[in-house]
Amino acid sequence: MAATSQRPLVYVADSPASGPAHEITRARIRAAARRHPGLFEGVRFAYGLKRADLAKAEIVLGVAFDATTLRQDAPRLKWIQSINAGVEKLAGKLDAGIALTNASGLHGPKGGEFGLTGMLILNHAVQRFVGSQRRRAWEPVFTTPIEGKTAVIVGAGALGQSVAKQAKRHGMRTIGINTSGKRVAGFDRVVKVAEMARVLPLADFLVVTLPITPATENLIDRAAIGRLPDRCGIVNLGRARVMDYDAMVERLRAGTLAGAVLDVFNPEPLPADSPLWDVPNLIVSPHAGVDDGAVYVERGLDIFAENLRRYLSGRKLRNLVDLARGY
Amino acid sequence: MAATSQRPLVYVADSPASGPAHEITRARIRAAARRHPGLFEGVRFAYGLKRADLAKAEIVLGVAFDATTLRQDAPRLKWIQSINAGVEKLAGKLDAGIALTNASGLHGPKGGEFGLTGMLILNHAVQRFVGSQRRRAWEPVFTTPIEGKTAVIVGAGALGQSVAKQAKRHGMRTIGINTSGKRVAGFDRVVKVAEMARVLPLADFLVVTLPITPATENLIDRAAIGRLPDRCGIVNLGRARVMDYDAMVERLRAGTLAGAVLDVFNPEPLPADSPLWDVPNLIVSPHAGVDDGAVYVERGLDIFAENLRRYLSGRKLRNLVDLARGY
Repeated sequence: MAATSQRPLVYVADSPASGPAHEITRARIRAAARRHPGLFEGVRFAYGLKRADLAKAEIVLGVAFDATTLRQDAPRLKWIQSINAGVEKLAGKLDAGIALTNASGLHGPKGGEFGLTGMLILNHAVQRFVGSQRRRAWEPVFTTPIEGKTAVIVGAGALGQSVAKQAKRHGMRTIGINTSGKRVAGFDRVVKVAEMARVLPLADFLVVTLPITPATENLIDRAAIGRLPDRCGIVNLGRARVMDYDAMVERLRAGTLAGAVLDVFNPEPLPADSPLWDVPNLIVSPHAGVDDGAVYVERGLDIFAENLRRYLSGRKLRNLVDLARGY
Repeated sequence: MAATSQRPLVYVADSPASGPAHEITRARIRAAARRHPGLFEGVRFAYGLKRADLAKAEIVLGVAFDATTLRQDAPRLKWIQSINAGVEKLAGKLDAGIALTNASGLHGPKGGEFGLTGMLILNHAVQRFVGSQRRRAWEPVFTTPIEGKTAVIVGAGALGQSVAKQAKRHGMRTIGINTSGKRVAGFDRVVKVAEMARVLPLADFLVVTLPITPATENLIDRAAIGRLPDRCGIVNLGRARVMDYDAMVERLRAGTLAGAVLDVFNPEPLPADSPLWDVPNLIVSPHAGVDDGAVYVERGLDIFAENLRRYLSGRKLRNLVDLARGY
């Protein structure tokens, strides 16, 4: 893939709804330009979400876009660089000739640490203490260190590897689940998705890091949740629809799971009338677990810069999303 | 100090109120005897909290005793091995001829991990998320990794060192506070108590691990709390009376501290009508943070065994409490 025009137009698809952690501002693009001297002179940036700019854009960079709009209003589009890891709203809906790259890897350091935080919370019964606190009840639970306990990490990509790295720091046993079953750094053992059922009973913690795709939807279904031991705590940093939350909630209400720290929901924001807010031993994290508040856009723009260098010289892009598989 | 009788009597001061994590049962003492072959044959154990046994006891081992009772009912007492680290209820109230040893070091591995858990909770705004959850409000906060942030750890003894070790595992900067200011392993810097005020403004996290003694009572007073930066989160694993909780709560209510994870209160259990249950960004942990549910009594009995060996051969005991200093 190579640029077709001399200085291709980059349409900046910032969202007016983005908070300060996610805004793609001119200042941030100028700062990225300084980190990659000369590179950004090869393109022009269009800010302000103008339809006329989209009509001329060869590249779309950002967080907010809609497949239908792009098909209708961006006839010259060749490449979309998303600053999200999950691109489920685009994949499968784009013309095959368009390159879609995501920001996989962006969430690694912060996300891995949040995954560990979730496991430590569950290991030390903090989800029970916050429930007791709501009832003004003094109900100690004496726990044990996390060393030697087993994390089953579903998804052994960038985020899963980062969680595994943190778990190994604390002497945990790490079992990864991926499609191939091939070894991955940081995991003591990697098991194919098809054999996941065999390792679920070993889980002191189940950590979900998967994107949502046709293959992952409801992968951790009622039967899978039924195989988790009573002591197991669940952390979901991936996408909600990967798991059967109803089945999980039934076990949480029955007291046959240790607890859950969930960062992802369907839909988001979680509606005020959702029953999930009040499930015992369930902590609601508002999809803030993996995005780094200080460097999220900066790292995303560095991924864009690396790919821009490749694009302008006609080389293969990194983080290319398989439009059929969805990640 | 040496035994005066042939096979001295050990009065087992178990508490009827102890939960399963803290009971000093015959089975646990038998198991400890197997871990230290032959040693326990040098003494006799008296179970059941009988006053007649206390009258003959040379050694008291356990978790529950009262200085007045011991003075009145244990005329032959020479040595008390406590299975707690904090012995504030005994120190200062015993006759000078009695050796009091505590279980300092018992809480290390679990307590250090709980201290890290508290810092990670505060670092990732989980204390805010649980507050939002109570109000069914979706309020994301995008945080950054803990690496490079500063923990000021008040108390550089066994528990403080264990917290520091965990903090270093995550690339944090550790500043310890002790009486001498002498270097201690695991701390990047150690500062004298007298100079504590100078480092408090550097704290991303203030972790308190101190016992309560005449010297530590209200050590972290209103002025000290006033020197903490707004971003600071507080973890207290030591004793409540070391800190001015009223001053801390005022700042939490004003939103000028990140939050607090408190494991210790005055009194305990925290009464149902205490205002602390509802302070924003304050997590109540019911004094369960440092005791290891699986090995607490076992480790305590190992400390007793090591000291019993010394006692029977007339050597100096370990973990001897300075009755004037209180630790």
